[in-house]
Amino acid sequence: MSPRGRRPAGTDTRAEIVHAASRVFASKGYQAASLRGIARDAGVDPALVHHYFAGKRELFVEAMRLPFDPAERIGAMVAGPPEQLGERIAAGFFAIWEVPESRERFVALVRSAVSDDDAGRMLREFVAREIVGRIGAAAVSPDGGERAALVASQLIGLAMLRYVVRVPQVTDVPLARLVEQVAPTLQRYLTED
Amino acid sequence: MSPRGRRPAGTDTRAEIVHAASRVFASKGYQAASLRGIARDAGVDPALVHHYFAGKRELFVEAMRLPFDPAERIGAMVAGPPEQLGERIAAGFFAIWEVPESRERFVALVRSAVSDDDAGRMLREFVAREIVGRIGAAAVSPDGGERAALVASQLIGLAMLRYVVRVPQVTDVPLARLVEQVAPTLQRYLTED
Repeated sequence: MSPRGRRPAGTDTRAEIVHAASRVFASKGYQAASLRGIARDAGVDPALVHHYFAGKRELFVEAMRLPFDPAERIGAMVAGPPEQLGERIAAGFFAIWEVPESRERFVALVRSAVSDDDAGRMLREFVAREIVGRIGAAAVSPDGGERAALVASQLIGLAMLRYVVRVPQVTDVPLARLVEQVAPTLQRYLTED
Repeated sequence: MSPRGRRPAGTDTRAEIVHAASRVFASKGYQAASLRGIARDAGVDPALVHHYFAGKRELFVEAMRLPFDPAERIGAMVAGPPEQLGERIAAGFFAIWEVPESRERFVALVRSAVSDDDAGRMLREFVAREIVGRIGAAAVSPDGGERAALVASQLIGLAMLRYVVRVPQVTDVPLARLVEQVAPTLQRYLTED
């Protein structure tokens, strides 16, 4: 029985593409997955994938049910005066995690990345390229990738202790204080020699 | 058939106690577990538990099959001149993770802590008390617990990216350079106002 109510044209095709994308990202990883391969898996013309999605990243965001596009948020965080880069990144990071729906989704993603090798590879490649890569482009120093990875390590460690494992010495600290403590660390990683 | 070869007296009783400890730590958490409760679960006299194990921490180390006692390592890291505290902690932390058996065991523990609520609580309580608590005691400032939690967050984030999820921008960095980058962060958390 197909539903009879009004529905935007192509909803099923679009959903098919998203499902195919989940499968292809999980089996091939983020790096090797292509819009063409996803179209093949979904049994549709590649042009149709391009019709619905601007690119691989946008399709990944939807396939992973991310509550927003991390690349867009990072773009907003890195824009602005370089002296407050660390503070903007720290504040922006926690602002995302403090939203309950985002937090739940991210905790679930961390769990799958840690326990499942395919999910781990997929997220590793996405984080390396779309998150570390973008923060790295904002670093002053030429080894931007390494600097951004240090930033990511500090933030991921805090997210682990505050939201995933919930160690009291971290969950008890007011958010503003956490930002104040961590911002200089991020600033140093990104801007000092 | 019981083995006939030579064997230290009480091996079975000791193993019984360790098994009971695994069960009790998992069901009650680290904090609420007691040597008396573990003795009861093992069906032995509490004095026998004390005969084999110096205390709850030593029993936990064995029940979790930790390759060494973290509290002892931390004791060694925090001893020495306070100006190099960050460097000693960073170097000591990576020295542990770079040993393959330790790394494998820790990756397994991180996986269980992240995916299983009981394991998560048990490890959270152990980390809060025996690791964060001990580093905190070395902090100059009165809010030592919070400072030590920041140290732990930086180190755990690095371990996640380097050993668990294996993001190339972190795995590619030579160890000495990682220590050099991270030591000032730990030093600042522990010693600055």
